[in-house]
Amino acid sequence: MLKLFEYNWQVREDWLDWCGSVSEEELLKKRTGGPGSILYTLFHIVECEYSWITLLQGKPDSGEPPFEKYAGLDKVKDYSARCHEEIAPFLYAWNGDLENRILTNRNSKGEWESFKYGEVMRHVLAHEIHHMGQLSVWSREIGKPPITANLIRRGLFDD
Amino acid sequence: MLKLFEYNWQVREDWLDWCGSVSEEELLKKRTGGPGSILYTLFHIVECEYSWITLLQGKPDSGEPPFEKYAGLDKVKDYSARCHEEIAPFLYAWNGDLENRILTNRNSKGEWESFKYGEVMRHVLAHEIHHMGQLSVWSREIGKPPITANLIRRGLFDD
Repeated sequence: MLKLFEYNWQVREDWLDWCGSVSEEELLKKRTGGPGSILYTLFHIVECEYSWITLLQGKPDSGEPPFEKYAGLDKVKDYSARCHEEIAPFLYAWNGDLENRILTNRNSKGEWESFKYGEVMRHVLAHEIHHMGQLSVWSREIGKPPITANLIRRGLFDD
Repeated sequence: MLKLFEYNWQVREDWLDWCGSVSEEELLKKRTGGPGSILYTLFHIVECEYSWITLLQGKPDSGEPPFEKYAGLDKVKDYSARCHEEIAPFLYAWNGDLENRILTNRNSKGEWESFKYGEVMRHVLAHEIHHMGQLSVWSREIGKPPITANLIRRGLFDD
């Protein structure tokens, strides 16, 4: 499971670097499909991972911060780094005994829901990869090659 | 790992059903970003999973079949079902002892490459989710709601 998180973090870093070569106007432009702009999508990926994993860590639901506070590349980079620092210890300490532990939480409609920890972990993983796929279409739309989605040849399994 | 394959198969089925409500012209139209058309993308997902997993099964490299043979919705559905039937037993029998086994294979440039089995498994998983993200953008472009990418609330962890 950890390898897939490491893959996502590496791909996210690559996309954040890629954003440095694109104008802020393009980064913030509302696009068809996906949650909104390129930068909002990256913010949303970080926020989704952070909010779910902090719940698994037993912390209170933090709620989604207003994007307006983060609507710049450096701010999203900083947000990503801070969130990563807070959740990484939990992910590095993950073990199979946690798979079937139950998280009970109120969803966005105010209803109580329960999920196995293992389900939440995989949901977060798939969520990020899915949105990166959307970025890859938008990057072609603005005439730039996308970050590769290949998981092989990234050195993730060299150890 | 298996849960993520099951997620991919469920999402793929949903997309193949979704295709039934879209004209063949839209399904075969070349789109910006991604490997090509909606139908080619679904074919490509199946082919990628099939070719890598059959290599892990110790079978010879089958090579990519010509898309022209599969350029219709029913043909891609049938191809997906046949490939699934052939590779599913390996995935259901997967265990951690296989993680570090080495696959050596010639890549598309004719170079020999080696990968851990665990790396190939995760590559295949991420590959499919990534391309589904592209489908979600294209579905909005043609005015249709996409298949949800949510892994939670699919009943995958009910057992």
